[in-house]
Amino acid sequence: MRGSLFSALAHKLQAYPGEVFPLHVGDTWMEPAAGCRMQDLTVEDYPGMHRYAAPRGRSDLVDAIVERTHQRTGTPTDPAEVLVAAGATGSLGAVIGAILEPSEEVLVMAPYWPLIFGIIQSSQGTPVEVDLFGSADSPETAVEAIAPHLTKRTAAIYLSTPNNPTGRILPRPWLEAICDWAAGNDLWILSDEVYEDYVYTGEHVYSRSLAPERTFSVHSFSKAFGMAGNRCGYVVGPAATMSEVRKVSTHTFYSTPTASQIAALHALRGAGDAWVEMAKPLYRQLGFEAADRLRVPRPEGSQFLFLNVGDRLDERGLLGFMEDAADRGLFLAPGPSFGCYPSHVRICYTAAEPEVTRRGVEILARML
Amino acid sequence: MRGSLFSALAHKLQAYPGEVFPLHVGDTWMEPAAGCRMQDLTVEDYPGMHRYAAPRGRSDLVDAIVERTHQRTGTPTDPAEVLVAAGATGSLGAVIGAILEPSEEVLVMAPYWPLIFGIIQSSQGTPVEVDLFGSADSPETAVEAIAPHLTKRTAAIYLSTPNNPTGRILPRPWLEAICDWAAGNDLWILSDEVYEDYVYTGEHVYSRSLAPERTFSVHSFSKAFGMAGNRCGYVVGPAATMSEVRKVSTHTFYSTPTASQIAALHALRGAGDAWVEMAKPLYRQLGFEAADRLRVPRPEGSQFLFLNVGDRLDERGLLGFMEDAADRGLFLAPGPSFGCYPSHVRICYTAAEPEVTRRGVEILARML
Repeated sequence: MRGSLFSALAHKLQAYPGEVFPLHVGDTWMEPAAGCRMQDLTVEDYPGMHRYAAPRGRSDLVDAIVERTHQRTGTPTDPAEVLVAAGATGSLGAVIGAILEPSEEVLVMAPYWPLIFGIIQSSQGTPVEVDLFGSADSPETAVEAIAPHLTKRTAAIYLSTPNNPTGRILPRPWLEAICDWAAGNDLWILSDEVYEDYVYTGEHVYSRSLAPERTFSVHSFSKAFGMAGNRCGYVVGPAATMSEVRKVSTHTFYSTPTASQIAALHALRGAGDAWVEMAKPLYRQLGFEAADRLRVPRPEGSQFLFLNVGDRLDERGLLGFMEDAADRGLFLAPGPSFGCYPSHVRICYTAAEPEVTRRGVEILARML
Repeated sequence: MRGSLFSALAHKLQAYPGEVFPLHVGDTWMEPAAGCRMQDLTVEDYPGMHRYAAPRGRSDLVDAIVERTHQRTGTPTDPAEVLVAAGATGSLGAVIGAILEPSEEVLVMAPYWPLIFGIIQSSQGTPVEVDLFGSADSPETAVEAIAPHLTKRTAAIYLSTPNNPTGRILPRPWLEAICDWAAGNDLWILSDEVYEDYVYTGEHVYSRSLAPERTFSVHSFSKAFGMAGNRCGYVVGPAATMSEVRKVSTHTFYSTPTASQIAALHALRGAGDAWVEMAKPLYRQLGFEAADRLRVPRPEGSQFLFLNVGDRLDERGLLGFMEDAADRGLFLAPGPSFGCYPSHVRICYTAAEPEVTRRGVEILARML
C-alpha cells in the first residue's frame, strides 16, 4: 500500500499543471556552503579525487569526525570506532547487517523514519513498532511503553532524536531511562541523530555519551549541511563490532564517494558550521510559523511537523485527504509510512523555497 | 586469512620507505575526462545538484543508459529495466538481495572478482566456486565444468567478462552455451561486464543479447571512464524483478550520488567515449608489455594479469612470496582472493603511472 500510494502521488506531482508544494520530501531548498560544492573540489587540489577511497573512509575525514565526536559527546573516540558510509541509510544498513541474526527483532520507537523498517527487513530481521512519541509523557512511561515488547529475540532498539517526523526531542531523563533499560537488557542502541544540528528548544543529548559500549550513533552531512545528494554520513560505535560493520558496508556500496568525503571535510573545517548558523534560524522560523498557522505545538527540532488530520477525514480516509491536497498542488507524506498513524500527515518545512512552503502551509491550514 | 593478509600488506605499504609499486589495486592512474570532473559540475548549471536524486536514478541518465544498452546489445530496453546504483558493488548487492532466498546458491565462475563471495553471503546465500577460466577449453567443457555444481538450491550463475582477474574474454560460443544451460535450468544470469570497454583481442558479447529474460547485466562508469570514486554504475534486468531490486537498493544506499550521476551523463554524451579511445591503447600497450616481460599470454581485455608463481614459492608459501615482493615495494593481490588459487597473484597494470607500473613489473619479472 505504501509503495503504490507514493507512486500514485509521484505521478500526480509530475502531471500537476499549476504551482506545486512538495512538502512530502525531506530535504533543503538551499545549496550547500560555498567551498563545499562539487565545483569547489578540483583535481589540482585533490589529485586522484575520482578514484576509490578506503572502504572505512578517508583518514583525514575520519580524523575530523573523531575530533568532532569527542568534542560533542565528551567521550574519547578512536578512528577504529568510525565508519564513513553512504548516508544514514548506508550506515544503518551496515550496522543492522552486522549485528542482526535472521528473525531477531529491533524495537523501533515510533513514529519513525520510514526507511528503518525496510532496512531491518532487508537483513531478515523483524522490526517491532513501539509508539513512544505519541503515548509516553515521562521517563517512566517511556520505559513502560517499550518494556512489554521485549522478547528473547530482541537485539536492539532504534530511536531518532531530534525526531523525524514529529519534530520532538527526547529529553535527557527520558534518554537516560531508555539507555539504562537497554543496558539492563543487553540491547544495542541504534541512535539516529541526523538532525542533531537542528535543535530549536532544549538540548540534543548524545546516546554515545550515556552508553558508548552499546551505542551506534548515526550522523549525516546530508541534513547538517544540505548535501543529501552526496550520500555521505557516518556511524560511530564499539570498535570490535565496527570491524564487522565495515565488512557489510564494503560488500554493499564498497566505499563512500570520494568527492563527497572531501566536501564533508570542507564542511567540518568551518564552512559547514557557518552554514548551520545561517540555516538554523531560517528553519526554526519556518517551523514555528507553520506550527502556529496549523495550530499545533512548535517543533523542538528537525525539519518536520506531524499532524493528526483525523477530524477532516471523510469515508475515503487519509488517501482521500491526500488526494484533495494533491488536487491543490500540495503533497504530503502519509502517516502510515511512519508507523501506525492512519490519520496523520507529515510536512517538511525546509524542502521548498520559504515562500512556496508558506503558500503550501496556507493551503493545508484551510483544509483543516 | 584474507582480511588479515590485506591489512598486513596495507600496513607494510604505508610504512614502506622507498618507491612503492601498488599493483594490487584495481583502478586507473588517470583523471577522468575534462567536462566529467566534479569541478565541471556547477549549481548554476544544475541547481539542486546536491539534493537527493530519485532512487531509481535521474531520468536523463536512465534515458541515456536505455539508448546505450539498446545500441550495444541490440535488445530493446525500457527505463523500467534500468537501475542506477552505487557502482557494480551496489548493483550486484541489490540484485542478489532481491532474487536470493536464504541458503540458495549462486554458481560463481572462477577466478572471480573478490567482492562477489561476500555480497552473496551478505544476503544469506551460498556462493559455489566453479573453476571455469582455468580448466575449460571449449563451450562443451565449459558447461561440463559448471553442470556438476547444480543443486535444487541453485538460483543463479555469476560470470565476469572481460574477466577480472584473468584478462580473458568469454568467446561467443562459450557464452551461448553457458546461457543456454542456464536457461535450461531456469537460473538467473548475473553478468558482470564492467570492463566491456577494455577489449584488446576478440569481441565482448553481451549476455543480455542472448538471454534478456534472465540476465542482470552490471555496468560501471568507474572502470569505463576512470570514476571509481564516484560510486556510480548501473544494472539492466527484467522489469518485473527490477522493481524488487529497487526496493533493496533504496534500503541500502537510498540513491546514487547526484553529482556522480551528472558526471556519468556528461561521459555518456561523448566525453567518456573519447576518454576510452585515449585510454584503451594505453592500457593495451601496458598489458601487452607486462605480459611479454612476465612470459604469460597477453590479456584479451580488462586491466589485469593473473600469474601462477607456484614455481617460485618456498616453504613460506604465497604469503612469503608476497612479503618478499613487499620488501621491494611491490604490492600484489593474492590468488586466494579470487578463488582456490593458492599460488597465483594478480597485478593491475593500469593503477599506477605507466613508468611506475613498468618498474614494478620488472621487479616481479626478476623474482620469477
